[in-house]
Amino acid sequence: MYPTKTPAFVEVTPKNLPISRSNSSLMPLPIKPAQEVKAKLIKTAPRNKLRLIALGGQDGIGDKNMYIYEYNDDILVFDSGMGFPSAEMLGVDFTIPDITYLEEKKNMIRGIFITHGHEDHIGSMPYTWPKLGAPIYTAPLTAGFLQAKFEESGIKGAKFNIITPGDKIKLGVFNIEAIHLTHSVPDVLGFAVGTPSGLFLHLVDWKIDYTPVFGKPTDVVRIAELAGDGVRALLTDSTNALIPGYTISEQIISQTFDNIFKDTKGRIIISSFSSQITRVQQVIDAAVKNRRKLVIAGRSMERNVNIAMQLGYLRVPQGLLQDIRHINHLPNNEVAIMCTGSQGQEFSALVRMAAGEHRQIQIKKGDTIVISASPIPGNEAAIDDTVNNLYRLGASVILNKQLDVHVSGHANQEDLKTMIALAKPEYFIPIHGDYHHLVEHGKLAESMGIDPNKIIIFENGQVVEFDQKVGSVTKEKVQSGNILVDGSGVGDVGNIVLRDRQAMAKDGIFVVIITVDHRTGKIMTSPDIISRGFVYMREAEDLIYKSRQEVKHIFASAYERTPANYELIKKTIRDQMSEFLFNATQRHPMVIPVVIEI
Amino acid sequence: MYPTKTPAFVEVTPKNLPISRSNSSLMPLPIKPAQEVKAKLIKTAPRNKLRLIALGGQDGIGDKNMYIYEYNDDILVFDSGMGFPSAEMLGVDFTIPDITYLEEKKNMIRGIFITHGHEDHIGSMPYTWPKLGAPIYTAPLTAGFLQAKFEESGIKGAKFNIITPGDKIKLGVFNIEAIHLTHSVPDVLGFAVGTPSGLFLHLVDWKIDYTPVFGKPTDVVRIAELAGDGVRALLTDSTNALIPGYTISEQIISQTFDNIFKDTKGRIIISSFSSQITRVQQVIDAAVKNRRKLVIAGRSMERNVNIAMQLGYLRVPQGLLQDIRHINHLPNNEVAIMCTGSQGQEFSALVRMAAGEHRQIQIKKGDTIVISASPIPGNEAAIDDTVNNLYRLGASVILNKQLDVHVSGHANQEDLKTMIALAKPEYFIPIHGDYHHLVEHGKLAESMGIDPNKIIIFENGQVVEFDQKVGSVTKEKVQSGNILVDGSGVGDVGNIVLRDRQAMAKDGIFVVIITVDHRTGKIMTSPDIISRGFVYMREAEDLIYKSRQEVKHIFASAYERTPANYELIKKTIRDQMSEFLFNATQRHPMVIPVVIEI
Repeated sequence: MYPTKTPAFVEVTPKNLPISRSNSSLMPLPIKPAQEVKAKLIKTAPRNKLRLIALGGQDGIGDKNMYIYEYNDDILVFDSGMGFPSAEMLGVDFTIPDITYLEEKKNMIRGIFITHGHEDHIGSMPYTWPKLGAPIYTAPLTAGFLQAKFEESGIKGAKFNIITPGDKIKLGVFNIEAIHLTHSVPDVLGFAVGTPSGLFLHLVDWKIDYTPVFGKPTDVVRIAELAGDGVRALLTDSTNALIPGYTISEQIISQTFDNIFKDTKGRIIISSFSSQITRVQQVIDAAVKNRRKLVIAGRSMERNVNIAMQLGYLRVPQGLLQDIRHINHLPNNEVAIMCTGSQGQEFSALVRMAAGEHRQIQIKKGDTIVISASPIPGNEAAIDDTVNNLYRLGASVILNKQLDVHVSGHANQEDLKTMIALAKPEYFIPIHGDYHHLVEHGKLAESMGIDPNKIIIFENGQVVEFDQKVGSVTKEKVQSGNILVDGSGVGDVGNIVLRDRQAMAKDGIFVVIITVDHRTGKIMTSPDIISRGFVYMREAEDLIYKSRQEVKHIFASAYERTPANYELIKKTIRDQMSEFLFNATQRHPMVIPVVIEI
Repeated sequence: MYPTKTPAFVEVTPKNLPISRSNSSLMPLPIKPAQEVKAKLIKTAPRNKLRLIALGGQDGIGDKNMYIYEYNDDILVFDSGMGFPSAEMLGVDFTIPDITYLEEKKNMIRGIFITHGHEDHIGSMPYTWPKLGAPIYTAPLTAGFLQAKFEESGIKGAKFNIITPGDKIKLGVFNIEAIHLTHSVPDVLGFAVGTPSGLFLHLVDWKIDYTPVFGKPTDVVRIAELAGDGVRALLTDSTNALIPGYTISEQIISQTFDNIFKDTKGRIIISSFSSQITRVQQVIDAAVKNRRKLVIAGRSMERNVNIAMQLGYLRVPQGLLQDIRHINHLPNNEVAIMCTGSQGQEFSALVRMAAGEHRQIQIKKGDTIVISASPIPGNEAAIDDTVNNLYRLGASVILNKQLDVHVSGHANQEDLKTMIALAKPEYFIPIHGDYHHLVEHGKLAESMGIDPNKIIIFENGQVVEFDQKVGSVTKEKVQSGNILVDGSGVGDVGNIVLRDRQAMAKDGIFVVIITVDHRTGKIMTSPDIISRGFVYMREAEDLIYKSRQEVKHIFASAYERTPANYELIKKTIRDQMSEFLFNATQRHPMVIPVVIEI
C-alpha cells in the first residue's frame, strides 16, 4: 500500500549530506584558544572596561540579533541574525546588521557565538561571516543549519567549533561557559561570560520548560551555582516581558496534536516554521500513535528535517516518511503533511496549496489544516487570506487562538522573575525587545528588588561600559542600523530609494518630458507625459490635456526668467506641476521633469 | 485655578450645533410609509421571492457594511459603511461599496436603515446617499453623527427618520421593527424584518451586556417573543465566532479605569476611537470620582463628544471639561486627557504627542497613557512605533493585553449561542465576517441543532433567495466590490493603477527616453535614463552606463528588423531591458521606454 521505495528526500547518502558527524570540522572539541593577534586599534576604545554593544536585537521582535562584548583588544560576537523588513521598507527582502564597527576591529574578534538556529540569530551569517572570518562556536544542530546556509551561498572555509552545555572556552580575556536553555528549537545555548569586569550572563531566546519535548530542561542549577560566584549583570530575553503568568510547556501541544489526530477523519496538514524541529517531532509522534504516514512539504522544511535527522535530533521510525509524489495513493485518514507557510508567506507550501497552485497537494473537503504558530506582527492579513482560501476549498483550519497548537518559546513574566531570582545579578540589562519591552522588563526587575540605578536600558548602537565599580550607558554611538537586502543587492537600497518607493506607492509618478530646440529655447513637440500609479490615464484625458497646457505655460515663463538654466526651469516645473496636480486630485504624485535639448 | 471661561469646544450654542433636538428633521416620528413609486425594473429579478444581497460586510473585519433586502418592487438597505484599505491597496484612503446594483433600482429603495454610528456602518453615506436619495431611518445619536458628516461634505436635503427600539415601520411589503442591542457605542439597533417569505432578524454588531454603561441591555425578551411567531432566518454578527466563552461587560473597564486613576500620580491620557461614546463616559466617571479635570484632544473626538453631549448621551458635570490650551496650568495629578490615535493613525492626537509634534500637549516623564482599544489587524506596527516613542519620552503605556482597558463590542461564542437559542430560527445566515468566520459561525449553529442544509454562507455580491418553501444561495452574482477613495478621487484608482503602485513600491521604475531622427531612424543623443526606487543612481553609474549601451544596441537591432514601428520597438526594449536589469540586480523595476521622434 505504501511505496516501498524510500522517499526521495530522505534518500540521502552521507556524501551529499549538507552536514554529517563524519565531517571533521564539526567534531566536538578540542577547542583551542583563538590565535593571539595583536589587534590594531582603529578607534581607541577606553581601556580596562567591558563594553557591551548591540548592533541589533534591541529594536523589537523580528529585529536582527547581534551583541558585542569588548574588552581592550578582545571582542566576542553573539549571534548574527536577519530581520524582517518593516512595512515602510517596501520591496526589501530582509535586513542584516551594519557591521562597520566590527569590520574596523576585525582582528580583535576572538569568536562568533551562535545561541541557536532561528533566522533572527543566524540569518545574516552568510553576509557577515565572510567579512569577519572569526571562528564560530555553536551547538551541533545550529552548526548543521549554518553549514547548509554557507553551502547554499557557496561560502567556504568557515571553522565550526562544536560546543555543548558545560563546555568552557578561554578566548583572550574572556572565559566563556555554555549553559543549556529550552526554547522552541533544540540545542539552545546561553552563555556565562567571565570578564575582568565580572561575570555576565547572556541569555536570549529561552523559557523555563521543565518537560521539554527534546532534551533537558533549562539548567537552572548551573545558573544558581554561577549566582553563588556573583553575577555582575544579567542580559536576558524581553520578548514576553508584558505577558503575565508562566509560559506553558511545549508538551501541551503534543496533547492537542494527539487529540486532533484522534478526532480527524480527513487529511491533516500542519504548518509551522521550518526551524521548529521539536514541532516536527511532535507531529511525528502523533502520526506514529495514530497510524498516519507523514509527508514533508516545502524546501526549507525538507532541508532542516534532513539535517536534524542526520544529526540525531529527530526520532523517525522506518517507513513513516513518505514521498510527496505518492500522497494521492494513501487513504485520507492515513495522511499527515508537515509544511511551511504558517505566516502566509508568498510561495510557501501552504500558500500555494490554498491558492490551488501546489503541484502535488490539492486541498479538498475534509482536510484539516493546523497553523502551529503565532502571527508575527505584520503578517496577520496574509494569514487571513490563506485561511479564507483554504475554507473556500472546503477545508477547516485550526488556529492557535482556538486550541493550544502553538506556545511561545519565550519566557513570560513569572519565568523572567524566576531567572532573576536564580541569577541574583547586581545589574539587570534587558535585551531582545523593543524599547517598550525593555523598559517594562526593567520594571519587573525593579519589582524583584534590583536597584533601579542598576537597571540599564540601551538601544542598538549605544555602548554600555563596566569598570570595577559601575556600569552605565555612555554617550558614545557606534555605527549601526539595518542594511537592506533586495534581490542581489546588499545595502544599495538606502533611504533615498525607499523614500522614492514610498512616494510612488502612495500617489504614483508623473514624468514630464520636454524637447527643446537648444538654439531658440522653444519647445519642439507637445510635452510627453508618462504617468503610472497616479490616475488611470485612459480615463483622465482631460487632466492630461490640461497638464500639457500647464507645462507649456510654466516652461515658457520660466525660460523667459532664466533662459537655458534648465536645472532651475525643471525645479519650477516640478513645484508648480505638483501644486497643479494636487489641486486637481488631492494627490501628490512624484513629478519628474525631463528636458531634452536637441 | 481652573479657567473660569467655559472651554472653547463645549461653548456651542444651538445655532452652530451640528445637530440638535430642536431640528425638526430629527424629531422622532411620525414616520410615514415611503411614497409609493412604481419602480421601473432594470433587471428582472425573480418575483415573489425575498432576495438578500451583501454589497459589503462579508469580507472580514473592517469591510464596508451594506446589506440589501429585496422583494418584488421593494428594497431596504441596511448600513452604508466605509472599509479599511487592505495592504495591497497602496495609497488608498478608504473603500466604499460599489452600489451600481442599487443605482439601477434606485426607485425601489424604501429606506436606508443605519444600525449604529461606527464608520464601517455609516462612513460611506456621504458618497452613497446622494446617489440613492432614499429616506434614512436610524436612532438619534447615529443621526447626529451622520448629519455632522453630511454637513462637512456639504450634503443637503437628507431626510432623517428618528426611530427608537419598539418602533414599527411599514415600507412596501416590509414590516420593520427596531430592537435594542448593546455594543460599544450607544443607540445600536437590530431589526426584525417581516417579509412575505417570513420574518428575518438582522442583528449586526452586538453583544449581550446585561450591565451596559449606557442604556438598557440587549432586548432578549423581544427577540424571544418574535421567536414565538417563528423566525425564518437569523442574520447575525460573526466577528467573534472563533472566540470561546462569554463577552465581558463594558463595566469591567470602569473598574480598571477607576483603579488606574486611583494609583496614578502623573497625568493620564486615554486613547480610543472617537465614536466610543460609552468609553468617554467611563473616563468622565473616573475623572469625577478621582478629582481630575478632562481635556478632549483630536478633532473627530471633539466633534463626536459635542454631538453626544448635545443629544444627552453623555453625563458631564459642570466644570469638568477644560480647554486644551489651559492644560499646562493644571497640576499633573488633576489632569486626564481623552484623545484619538489608538490605532497609531498618522496625524492623530496621540501619534502627534508621541512624535513631540502636538501643539498643546508635551509628553513628559510620569505620564501614563492608556490605549483603550484592540489593534485592528494591520495597525500593529504603527501602534508599536507610537508606544516606543512614548516610552522614549519617559511615559508608561497600559495596553489591553496587560489590563482590562478594552473589551470587544462583539458577541463571543456563548453569546452567539444564546442568541440562536432565543431566536430559534429555521435558517441561519452568518454575516459580518470573512469566509472563515462565517463558516465557523455556521458550525456553531449546527452544534445547536440547526439543520446544516439551512445554514447559508454567502459572500459579497452573491444573492440568497427565499420563497415560501426554501432558502438558498443562487448562482446570480450582482456587481459588488470596493470602490477606492484616494484624495478627491472616488473610483478612479482601479486595478491597473494599484498594480502599477505595487510594482513601483517593490522595485521602482526605469524610464528610458530615446530621441530619434524621424528621417533616418538614428538615435540623436545618448538615451536618457530616469530611475526612482530601483537603485541609488549616484552609486550605480556603472549599471546606468551599461544600460545606455544596452538600450542603444537593442534599439538599433529592433529598428533594423521593424523600421519605424515604434510600438514594437518599445515592446522589445521593455522586454529585453527588464531581463538585462533582472540579471544585473535580481529586481524587476517597471521599465518604461519613451521614443521621441524629432
